[in-house]
Parts: sequence; structure tokens; C-alpha cells
Amino acid sequence: MNVIVQKYGGTSVADSERLRVVAKRVVEAKNTGANVVVVVSAQAGVTNSLLDKAREISSKAAQREVDMILATGEQISIGLLALAIQELGEKAKSFTATQAGILTDNQFGSARIADIQTKEIKRALAEGYIVIIAGFQGVTSSGEITTLGRGGSDITAVALGVALQAESVEIMTDVDGVFTADPRIVHDARKIDFISYAEMLEMAGSGAKVLHLRSVELAAKHHLVIHLRSSLNLSIGTRITEEVFTMESSLVTGIAHERGLARITLHNMADYHTSTVVVLKTIALARINIKLFTQSYIDDHNNSFTIVISNSDFTRAWQIIETIGSGKSESELTGSRDLAMVSVIGVGMKAHAGVAAQVVDILTQHQVSLNYISCSEINISCLIAEKECDKAVIALHRGFSLAAENND
Amino acid sequence: MNVIVQKYGGTSVADSERLRVVAKRVVEAKNTGANVVVVVSAQAGVTNSLLDKAREISSKAAQREVDMILATGEQISIGLLALAIQELGEKAKSFTATQAGILTDNQFGSARIADIQTKEIKRALAEGYIVIIAGFQGVTSSGEITTLGRGGSDITAVALGVALQAESVEIMTDVDGVFTADPRIVHDARKIDFISYAEMLEMAGSGAKVLHLRSVELAAKHHLVIHLRSSLNLSIGTRITEEVFTMESSLVTGIAHERGLARITLHNMADYHTSTVVVLKTIALARINIKLFTQSYIDDHNNSFTIVISNSDFTRAWQIIETIGSGKSESELTGSRDLAMVSVIGVGMKAHAGVAAQVVDILTQHQVSLNYISCSEINISCLIAEKECDKAVIALHRGFSLAAENND
Repeated sequence: MNVIVQKYGGTSVADSERLRVVAKRVVEAKNTGANVVVVVSAQAGVTNSLLDKAREISSKAAQREVDMILATGEQISIGLLALAIQELGEKAKSFTATQAGILTDNQFGSARIADIQTKEIKRALAEGYIVIIAGFQGVTSSGEITTLGRGGSDITAVALGVALQAESVEIMTDVDGVFTADPRIVHDARKIDFISYAEMLEMAGSGAKVLHLRSVELAAKHHLVIHLRSSLNLSIGTRITEEVFTMESSLVTGIAHERGLARITLHNMADYHTSTVVVLKTIALARINIKLFTQSYIDDHNNSFTIVISNSDFTRAWQIIETIGSGKSESELTGSRDLAMVSVIGVGMKAHAGVAAQVVDILTQHQVSLNYISCSEINISCLIAEKECDKAVIALHRGFSLAAENND
Repeated sequence: MNVIVQKYGGTSVADSERLRVVAKRVVEAKNTGANVVVVVSAQAGVTNSLLDKAREISSKAAQREVDMILATGEQISIGLLALAIQELGEKAKSFTATQAGILTDNQFGSARIADIQTKEIKRALAEGYIVIIAGFQGVTSSGEITTLGRGGSDITAVALGVALQAESVEIMTDVDGVFTADPRIVHDARKIDFISYAEMLEMAGSGAKVLHLRSVELAAKHHLVIHLRSSLNLSIGTRITEEVFTMESSLVTGIAHERGLARITLHNMADYHTSTVVVLKTIALARINIKLFTQSYIDDHNNSFTIVISNSDFTRAWQIIETIGSGKSESELTGSRDLAMVSVIGVGMKAHAGVAAQVVDILTQHQVSLNYISCSEINISCLIAEKECDKAVIALHRGFSLAAENND
């Protein structure tokens, strides 16, 4: 069975006019002879207004009931899209996660898909229906309604792609694909045609908000090609796939960035190894997300331990670390806020030493002072002042010749 | 298992403040030692705004998808009410119709409940939960989501009462119960403590909009007591029950009325019997609701056939009957609009002849001219000019001594 999965986000289905545009697009896919499965999110704004309703009642709302309430957002969208498709004279049928058999564990609010029982979906496809499935939601084996958490609808689409052995999963967004850098900053940024799962994970993890990590991981695990493309035009977007397709790519694939960060460094701790574990555990318990951490240790009088976090978590994290470090006379705490992380990403870097040196060189030439640098095999991340973020992204994009003119 | 079913309508759960009031009321019921099952409607306004969304997409929207969309209204309410109850420190768990096992046929938009598989509800009750169930919705044996049509949540509550062999089903409304006449017209109208199913059916069918016919029929069939009471105070409302409880009642139980009606009479039809059937069938096909019809036949030159319908259906009905009657030379059509039906209802009338004469006498004394009168065993309905409706209701209420002073 030749199946295409398309996923449309909340902005794409925000009102009846946009729903009609999506319906037309879906019918065009069906007209190519494919069996079409469509995953939709809640209409833009709906999930937040439902959350507000729940929080108005209870500040510590039980997640089971929150999921019960939130799941209605997607249920409305699927019904509306089915109607819009029927208006075009095509057969369409909507499915909640319960009806579609999207089984999850019972972690309300952040459930993981365990299995998809595709019988009903396949039956509807065989009967000629376009199948519309509620994203972001699932059902436990005992019939409880769950939601999948952030990036949920993308995960639904990828999981359906895997379960239905789809030809492709098309994630429709409001951008044309993944770019070599943010086009709002770098005006000659180039759309990337193919990107490997590993690079996409680094891009997503480094601030490129096009696709959630979990859906990329799931696709990678099952070797499923994700086609990230615009919901507004028919142009080819970015295909996220195995590394082999990226052979033509240059040393560096793209530049990602994330603003609003802060750094805290603890110097010269006694009981260094025990203390770092205590710090990491305590920070995690306080639900502060650590973007990055590094350590350097010579002896108990010569060491440092650095974490990178959100600006908004700075004060809480500082207090926690200060408390832990207190009473250890030599230890000293330093920190800074309003930082940005600029990341140079590319599988091509694996085979080429010296890219890190090149990064430092480019930034220095442009008077960007490096607060901190971290390197993995395919990702070089630089912590700099937030106000220098644009300059650094532009300089690196030019320095690695990523612009459209030089590569296409 | 000692079960109480409470049903709250859309106004009672319209916002967080009212939801908190309902939650408190539910917990009070639980604290009496009962197992409490609560049925809720969608928040006031939600169903209409969902319907608008569907109609914006499609004027001839498929009812399956409309039901998919509408069912979300109640799903939001149950989650919110469960949260409000949990805020009071009680265990509460919400159930969609699918989860509660409320099985219906597959007549989308007006499904009938076939069975309720109470296992999950009973399990939750046994575990000490207050069970919150989405009204108005059902599920087919193949997992399709249906809605029950008008009065749906009342029907859900009564059906649950039957299935759980509940002690009582409390339908909470914004009035204190059923009154001997509309208190907005008759200022000394008296709340009725007990009313029989048959009388309640006549009251509901004659314009008293407190409870839908289908839920009364269902309760009557299973001898289930419905307690119609205010959601705003704890006073005892009206108990709808077997006739035996109404022994103390007077000749007449109450006066109902309905405005906005019209009458069409077809005189001296040839082929009388065939023609009346054709008229009734054609009117039904045009989805025009006939409130009442009567006929009188001596021969093909001396007969008449009258239907009572809504003002808004008058023009369409007139055209249909004119077309059917045309070519039958002797037949003649008359009609009038802006009528009201005033109904005198009471099981006490069964045993007493002459009530109809008394009705005519009272109306005549007050210069209300009777357009038409129809009598059943427990209901005398008078068609009068709409502008005389209040006068007639007040006169009949006084004439049959229904006021609070005379009866309590």
C-alpha cells in the first residue's frame, strides 16, 4: 500500500480559509494515486486557551484531566478538515487517537507511543477515504486519553509513517525547509535539500526550532525519510534522511543559534567529583534544563565546572550552586547572562580537523569574543554575548561559504 | 451500590466560578455516603460556536464529522469539573462516552442509546471516585462518536440512572422545578412537588421546556424517579414519578403554553382519507413539525383537516398543501398565524367529566376566543390568538385554583 503521511500544524488549520487551502493540498496528494493519511494539530491558539481554562480551575491540575481537555483541540481540527475535504467531493474520515489505535504508555502529558494498531486506518484507506488523524494524542491500553507533549503532532506523523511503512512523511510548516542559517539574520541563507538525521538533531538541539528532537530520533531509528516543506507552496523542502544522501554537502551544513542563555562557572571546588554530581542532580531536581556543561580538573585547587542554562533560570541556579559551594573556602562562583550559543554543524566536519580553529579564527576576525567553546564530532558550539549573535552567524555563514550563490 | 446521578446543564458549568459551585454541590452529595455519578453538558455557548465553525466550512456538513466536533464540548466540561472537584480534595475521574461505554446506534446527530456497559463506571465508583461523564454523546459498537440530539445530556443522565439502578436522577436546572404555570406570567404559580410521567410528557409536549420528552419517556419506561431541581439552591424541586404519588393533586396539575404557532385547515377535500395521508407524509418529508392535527369527516363534501405548526413553517406548509389540494374544485384552504396553544393538564381530569366545559367557560368569561380545542384524557389544548396567551394562562390558573395560597 502506497501511503503518504502529511502533517499540518496549528497555523495551517487556524481558520476555515486555511483549512480549505490544506484540503485542496491533501486532495492533490490523493490525486497522484497515493493513499493519504493526514495528521493535524489543534487550531492555533486553541491548546493555550484550553490550558488557561484548566489553570483557572486548578494551578496544580492533574495531568490526566488536562490531557482529557487538551485532546479536544485536535479532535475539532480533524472534524473540520474532514468536512473541508468532503466539500471538494472527496471521501474523508476523521479519527481520534483512540479510534486510530495510537497506543501509548500512561505518562499523561508526555506519553510515548508504544504501538499503532493500523487496522482501522488501513480499512478506511482501502475503502478510498482520505484518513485524518488527530495529532499529539494517544490512548493507553485501558482506554485513557493521553497527550504526547512538545512536538507531539510531528511524532504522531512519524510514528504513523513507520507503522504504515509510508513512502514519505511530509511535515508541513510555515518555512520552506531547513536553512543553512536563520534567513531572518542571514539574507543569502540557502535552503538545505538533504540533511542527515544526526545533523538535524544537532540543528534542532542548537536552536533551529523546525522539528522536535523526538520525531527526528524516531525517524532515524526506522530509516524513515521526513520531508520538511512549506504548507504554503509546492516547492521541495528539506529531506531528512540517512547520511549517504549528504555526500555532496560541504564541510559545514548549517549554522544554528539560540539566544537568551546564561552561564555559571564554579571554580576550584574541593571534593570536585562528588560536588559536580551534587550540582547536576540538584539542578535537575529544580527542573532547570541544562543546555550544556563542561568541566576541567587538575586538582582540588585547580578546576572549573560550567553549566549553560536559560537566562530565566539564572537566579535560581545561582542560589542552588551557591548553597552547595558554601563553606568550601577556596571555591568561587562566576557567571554571566544575556549570552547566545552559535553552533556550526556538519557531518563533513568528521573527516576534517581544524574546523574548530577556523571557527575561532572567523569569530576573532570579526571581534566576537568567545566566552566558551564546545566541540562534538559534528557540532562546534560557541557561547558569545547575545548582542553579537547576528554578527557571528553572518560571519560564520560567509566564512564557510554556505550562501546560495556558492553552493547550488 | 447506592448511586445518585446528577446532571448539570451548560449554564451551570459555564465558567470556573460556576464549576466550583457545582463541584461543591457534588462533593456534598458524595459526603452523604452515596456513590455519585455526574453528567455534564458543554459549557454554555460552546456547542453553538463549534457548530458555527463546522457550518463555516460546509453548509451541508456530514453529521459524522459534526458529531466528532460537537462531542469535544462535553469532553472539555468533564475534565474541568474533575479538576474543580479534585481542588476540593476529593477523587474525581472524567469519562467520555467511549470510555463510559455508552453504546448507541449509528444515527449521527440523533443517536439512541442501546446499552451502557457500566463496568468501568462501577469500578471507579468502587475505588471511591466521583465519576464525571460527558453528556449528549455516545459511541457505536465500531467506535464511532455519536451525539444524541436535543435534550441529549438529560437522556444520558436518565439512561445512566437506569443502567446503574440509581436511587435518583437529579436534573439540575436554572429553575426550582415544574410550576403550575410559567411564573413569569402567573405570579402566584406554585412549584409542583410530584408530577406523573404522563403529565410531565404533556407539559413538555405543550411548551414547558424544562425537560426533554425522550428523557421522561425513558424514565417512565423504567420507573425511574427524576428529581428536577435548582442548581443554585438546595431546595427540593419536582419529583417526576409514577401516578400514585400524585393522588393528593387536584383536578388540574398545571397550565402549559406555547407561542408562535399557526393553523392551516383544508375543507371539503375529495378523496379525503387518501389526501390527508398524502398531506401528512409530504409535510413530514419537508421536515415540518406538526404540533397537533385534527380531522372531521362526514362525506367528501363535508370534511375538514387541520394542522398546527410553527409560524415559521406556515408559508412552506401552505404551499405544499395548496399544491396537493389544487385541481380538487370544492376544496378550500384557510389558515391563521400568531396563535398560541394553552394546555390544561392533569391526571385528575380522567375521573372528572366536564373539565373541558369548564375550560371553555373560563376562557369565554375572559373574552378569549377559541380558535380550536383538542382533548385527550389528561390534556385539554386550546388554540387562541397569541396576544391573548397571558390572559388565558392567568385566567385558567386562577379558575382551577392552582395558586400557592389555595393548595399548599
